[in-house]
Amino acid sequence: MTTGLPFDDFRNLLGALPGPDEAAVAAVRERDAQLTKPAGALGRLEEIAEWLAAWTGRPPAVTRPLVAVFAGNHGVVEQGVAPYPPSVTAQMVENFAAGGAAINQICVAHDLGLKVFDLALDYPTADITQDAAMDEKTCAATMAFGMEAIAGGADLLCIGEMGIGNTTVAAAIFHGLYGGEASDWVGPGTGSAGEILERKIDAVARAVALHKPHLGDPLEVLRRLGGREIAAMAGAILAARMERVPVIIDGFVATAAAAVLHAANPAALDHCLAGHVSAEPAHAMALKKIGKEPLLSLGMRLGEGTGAALATGIVKAAALCHTGMATFEQAGVSEKG
Amino acid sequence: MTTGLPFDDFRNLLGALPGPDEAAVAAVRERDAQLTKPAGALGRLEEIAEWLAAWTGRPPAVTRPLVAVFAGNHGVVEQGVAPYPPSVTAQMVENFAAGGAAINQICVAHDLGLKVFDLALDYPTADITQDAAMDEKTCAATMAFGMEAIAGGADLLCIGEMGIGNTTVAAAIFHGLYGGEASDWVGPGTGSAGEILERKIDAVARAVALHKPHLGDPLEVLRRLGGREIAAMAGAILAARMERVPVIIDGFVATAAAAVLHAANPAALDHCLAGHVSAEPAHAMALKKIGKEPLLSLGMRLGEGTGAALATGIVKAAALCHTGMATFEQAGVSEKG
Repeated sequence: MTTGLPFDDFRNLLGALPGPDEAAVAAVRERDAQLTKPAGALGRLEEIAEWLAAWTGRPPAVTRPLVAVFAGNHGVVEQGVAPYPPSVTAQMVENFAAGGAAINQICVAHDLGLKVFDLALDYPTADITQDAAMDEKTCAATMAFGMEAIAGGADLLCIGEMGIGNTTVAAAIFHGLYGGEASDWVGPGTGSAGEILERKIDAVARAVALHKPHLGDPLEVLRRLGGREIAAMAGAILAARMERVPVIIDGFVATAAAAVLHAANPAALDHCLAGHVSAEPAHAMALKKIGKEPLLSLGMRLGEGTGAALATGIVKAAALCHTGMATFEQAGVSEKG
Repeated sequence: MTTGLPFDDFRNLLGALPGPDEAAVAAVRERDAQLTKPAGALGRLEEIAEWLAAWTGRPPAVTRPLVAVFAGNHGVVEQGVAPYPPSVTAQMVENFAAGGAAINQICVAHDLGLKVFDLALDYPTADITQDAAMDEKTCAATMAFGMEAIAGGADLLCIGEMGIGNTTVAAAIFHGLYGGEASDWVGPGTGSAGEILERKIDAVARAVALHKPHLGDPLEVLRRLGGREIAAMAGAILAARMERVPVIIDGFVATAAAAVLHAANPAALDHCLAGHVSAEPAHAMALKKIGKEPLLSLGMRLGEGTGAALATGIVKAAALCHTGMATFEQAGVSEKG
């Protein structure tokens, strides 16, 4: 199967992903049935406990949660699709480092590690209305960078991003993968409206039309319509699967990275939860396409990993309930009559 | 207006509730507009920051969150409406004290204080299909007990409960306040099904029919169809309003306590958020009646304050984002072009 092309390793990986640890799941189910609560009364918290066990191979626990934020810049901003200048991407990376962004505060609130990776911000990807965003070598190298980024022992990974123009490329990816009209997938992002929004829809339509003949291959969708932070997130999600680290996917742009993997292998996101459904109008539809029910719906639309990070509060509580609750026998509580 | 009856103080209180601190809200709005994010991009987190300021009169902060769980027993269990014996209420109170229940673990996860109040568990209220649950004096004294329970300086209060049989009385309260059919308001609770569920629906229908002539008065609904933990929760919600402590209401039964206050004064719950919409089928409808959009929807149906406690993770993050984020000027980030 080796052809010597940069994507080969990823194609091989996507065809041979590890599955869930069924024994760990069975152990969770057995214990759950003995805990001092009516069966099923913790709802999705019970599913989350099973999911943590399935993808770590151990009893549910979250002791080293990490938020990984990938930042990139995009040639398509030359089409006038974004209300903020591209210099804001680097400024926000500085703000993350200084602790001044929303994601920093959510990490404080939920005691999460945070790593920010800026991806050649001075070298935006090509304008997708004119050319492929990246050549195959650059795209594969950026995915590999994303894979390495999560090394270091996290046991829960939140995937997020920052990048002026990246809701445009994310919309192009969804339009490329799922069809429909460009306007089905384009929304305000950081606040595009009026003429800017019209230009954004037009740019997405033209980009997908230009690359149309090649969009049957999800990795081609990624390199032609994507961006560096999106390629890196795809790599990070894959690496987490190999290293048995469950993932919480953030918003609209992170979901585009996930959708590429899902299109290549529908089981590729089984180790992932969706943290939050964005106010970006097409996000709910995108989550449906990848088969994910979000944990939260709070009208946020910021990216930065904020929706995923906020959802860790629920995942941590699910793990603690499972491992820390008493059984009926331990507590001397009568079972159902 | 004094008539010398036990409910008088509460009627007076409900007619003269303090309103929000508009200056504190204005200060939040002014600061929010300068924070390093697009306007509105934190969605409900921005509303929560305003709400915290409105009802505390200070900048948003959560430093002493408290979960208050009230436990009571109910004569209506003699009608065979619950799958667990009433002895489980006291057993679960012991379990709370020993740290073995779900609420204990959620308090660990979110660093919340927990106080549990058992309300004369050996003296269940009267069977509401036969008599009023409580006389006016007992009901008023229990509300007063609930008011005192929250003394001690919490700055965010989660209201929850435990009581075998209490989804039956909660359903009776909703049916009494809002009409419809008994079956509209009755659900499985801890797991009633088949004949038990039929008896539960029948008991609620008979209780509401018996007390019908008196149900135009919300406090009469509370004392006739309620229970001690529900009266105490109503008192605690009122006391929180007077003491400027914002409240997160838990599930189906806690919402019944809130609904009594809302029926007496539609502004009585303006200092409250709904933490979670329960899997108990009628809870969504009850929340709509009191005008609350829940923060979470995770299919839980346990009570104990679990849904409210889980929602504190979002409220804390909202406060931290508001106070801890940098402004555009501080961070040197360009504003919208």
